[in-house]
Amino acid sequence: MTFQLHILAGLLAAAVAIPAAAQFARPDDAIKYRKAQMVLKQAHLGRVAAMASGRVPFDAKVAADNAEIVSVLGRTTTQGFMAGSEGGNAKAEIWKETAKFNELAEKADAESGKLLAAAKAGNLDALKTAVAATGGTCKACHDAYRN
Amino acid sequence: MTFQLHILAGLLAAAVAIPAAAQFARPDDAIKYRKAQMVLKQAHLGRVAAMASGRVPFDAKVAADNAEIVSVLGRTTTQGFMAGSEGGNAKAEIWKETAKFNELAEKADAESGKLLAAAKAGNLDALKTAVAATGGTCKACHDAYRN
Repeated sequence: MTFQLHILAGLLAAAVAIPAAAQFARPDDAIKYRKAQMVLKQAHLGRVAAMASGRVPFDAKVAADNAEIVSVLGRTTTQGFMAGSEGGNAKAEIWKETAKFNELAEKADAESGKLLAAAKAGNLDALKTAVAATGGTCKACHDAYRN
Repeated sequence: MTFQLHILAGLLAAAVAIPAAAQFARPDDAIKYRKAQMVLKQAHLGRVAAMASGRVPFDAKVAADNAEIVSVLGRTTTQGFMAGSEGGNAKAEIWKETAKFNELAEKADAESGKLLAAAKAGNLDALKTAVAATGGTCKACHDAYRN
């Protein structure tokens, strides 16, 4: 099985380029990755927001399933901005103000954690507050760092 | 705040097009979404595979964080294949063999659940088995349904 694992790891590494010392070998892989995580967060926060706003009926299980995706993907927020991957819709300030950028990401993590907790508790009022707060952290970062 | 939530939900809905009755209004949104979830799963399974194969040192916490992303994203696997979104790299059989397609997705979910359990337990041998099994479920579905 070790040999099979080497083949599998090699195939995955070739596809997504994972060297030992960095997450992405090519800047384009990083750009593709950071776009992908935003597509998913937006889609799944959108589903929770639709319930919070009353556009679709509130279902605590569905809300929690979607909020968990948003929350767990908080881990991916800053990973796609490796040195050398400047460009796309990302402002150059990201690479100059790393501490501030990371701080905004941490705020988003904290709020999406509350979102998940509210959904798990089935608390629609708390969910409304958390959707607005989480969306606010997305907007704050995009206003500052997205072209 | 209700008004703000309506604005936020509206913005998110406009961006990702979430009507009440379906997840995506436009086939292109579904295609973008299904590609995004595959980019993320591949990247994060790749990081676990790199540890399982010994390419990078085993760190149970890092393995669990990555395995959790793969496992939670199991929820997204079949969501991007709405009626009318045929095309991209997806074979037409997906829409003709829904039960078989869903069954392959469920197998992937089951194996990625074992992957997460092995990572959380810090069991490298179990992790190796689970990486190979999870990768095998990806491959089985791609072999059958991806051009």
